[in-house]
Amino acid sequence: MSDATTSIAELRDAWAQFVTERDWQQFHSPKNLVMALACEAAELMEHFLWIDNDASRQVVQDPVVREQVADELADVTGVVLALCNALGLDLSACVRHKMAKNVHKYPVEKSRGRYRVPE
Amino acid sequence: MSDATTSIAELRDAWAQFVTERDWQQFHSPKNLVMALACEAAELMEHFLWIDNDASRQVVQDPVVREQVADELADVTGVVLALCNALGLDLSACVRHKMAKNVHKYPVEKSRGRYRVPE
Amino acid sequence: MSDATTSIAELRDAWAQFVTERDWQQFHSPKNLVMALACEAAELMEHFLWIDNDASRQVVQDPVVREQVADELADVTGVVLALCNALGLDLSACVRHKMAKNVHKYPVEKSRGRYRVPE
Amino acid sequence: MSDATTSIAELRDAWAQFVTERDWQQFHSPKNLVMALACEAAELMEHFLWIDNDASRQVVQDPVVREQVADELADVTGVVLALCNALGLDLSACVRHKMAKNVHKYPVEKSRGRYRVPE
Repeated sequence: MSDATTSIAELRDAWAQFVTERDWQQFHSPKNLVMALACEAAELMEHFLWIDNDASRQVVQDPVVREQVADELADVTGVVLALCNALGLDLSACVRHKMAKNVHKYPVEKSRGRYRVPE
Repeated sequence: MSDATTSIAELRDAWAQFVTERDWQQFHSPKNLVMALACEAAELMEHFLWIDNDASRQVVQDPVVREQVADELADVTGVVLALCNALGLDLSACVRHKMAKNVHKYPVEKSRGRYRVPE
Repeated sequence: MSDATTSIAELRDAWAQFVTERDWQQFHSPKNLVMALACEAAELMEHFLWIDNDASRQVVQDPVVREQVADELADVTGVVLALCNALGLDLSACVRHKMAKNVHKYPVEKSRGRYRVPE
Repeated sequence: MSDATTSIAELRDAWAQFVTERDWQQFHSPKNLVMALACEAAELMEHFLWIDNDASRQVVQDPVVREQVADELADVTGVVLALCNALGLDLSACVRHKMAKNVHKYPVEKSRGRYRVPE
């Protein structure tokens, strides 16, 4: 089983079962879940806090750090899936819809090799 | 096309193509990407900032808010997928591995209807 | 000693000494510090993650939670002060300057009892 | 007026007046305010998103970026002050109390030139 053979629905269903078994839907308001998402993102960020970009590419080669990072990424993903479940949103549809907007917003010729700065 | 018929790899590949076409891999260090993830999570959070949990469940019924939230959720997901691509991590494997840990960490009988507080 | 008798410069100087004694200025780039700020803000957020607004007002009456929250707030403040030190910004000037903008942006008659939603 | 001559209480009082004039205390539950803090921290972070640590030190020399960063830092500070007001916490006491803990947690001889990594 891998990303090539796992549908998004399978992961969503696995999380829905985990949540339902613990009767945690009552806590899964959109407000609570987006807070949880920001908290999990911050825990992921902690692993790269005081180092340079180059060092951040190196440190993930360490097996211990790699598993910590993988776990935090899974936690983030779990909240994303819980949000889809709580909101009744199809994640693949959201991603495709937004990507179409992004293709328009960041045309290749104007965006190549350039990053966006806040206004 | 929906979550039931879309593999995680398909979404990963779509994002990889979007990034490669714009030559943005150079910016996709783990450090930069986790910062981007936290920024996108915060943008999602803004939509639920000053309201109660109950109101957060209501407001997502509004079609305009619903699309904004869906777009922000897609942005978060895009960064998660970009992180998997940059790190060479299989997301479904990460999620299954972490979920097994969570099942052990939060046994049903002790966790039902109870949330975790920080230590 | 209290907020009434403590100048901002006193707190800045105390942090500067703490940082210098540990030779931590080398880590205090603006990028690293803003990441640290987001991480500390998330740790503060964790204490209010799964509860309602009303409960969040109650829980801070508990002496144990109150000290945890006070400590997290101090951590956030420490990073703010470290940022001022690293950037050479006068915090009181920043706050007064921005407040003047906010007074103009949120006129009393239009803002009373209303919160801002993201565009 | 500067950090040397401005007490923390003066800035707190200025924010309290701003909030009271707009009748915004009703929104200032601890939960809402910590969310707002995380959102403001993320807006600050956006300015340093895709660049290296060295570049982050350079970019703040640009007057336009410098004012944007100063404004975001003021927004973060405003929420910190609003939290102190809402919680009835003395910020200088919180900072001194936590700094004493930090001095103990990070002894100079063991901490010099070394940063902490997440466990």
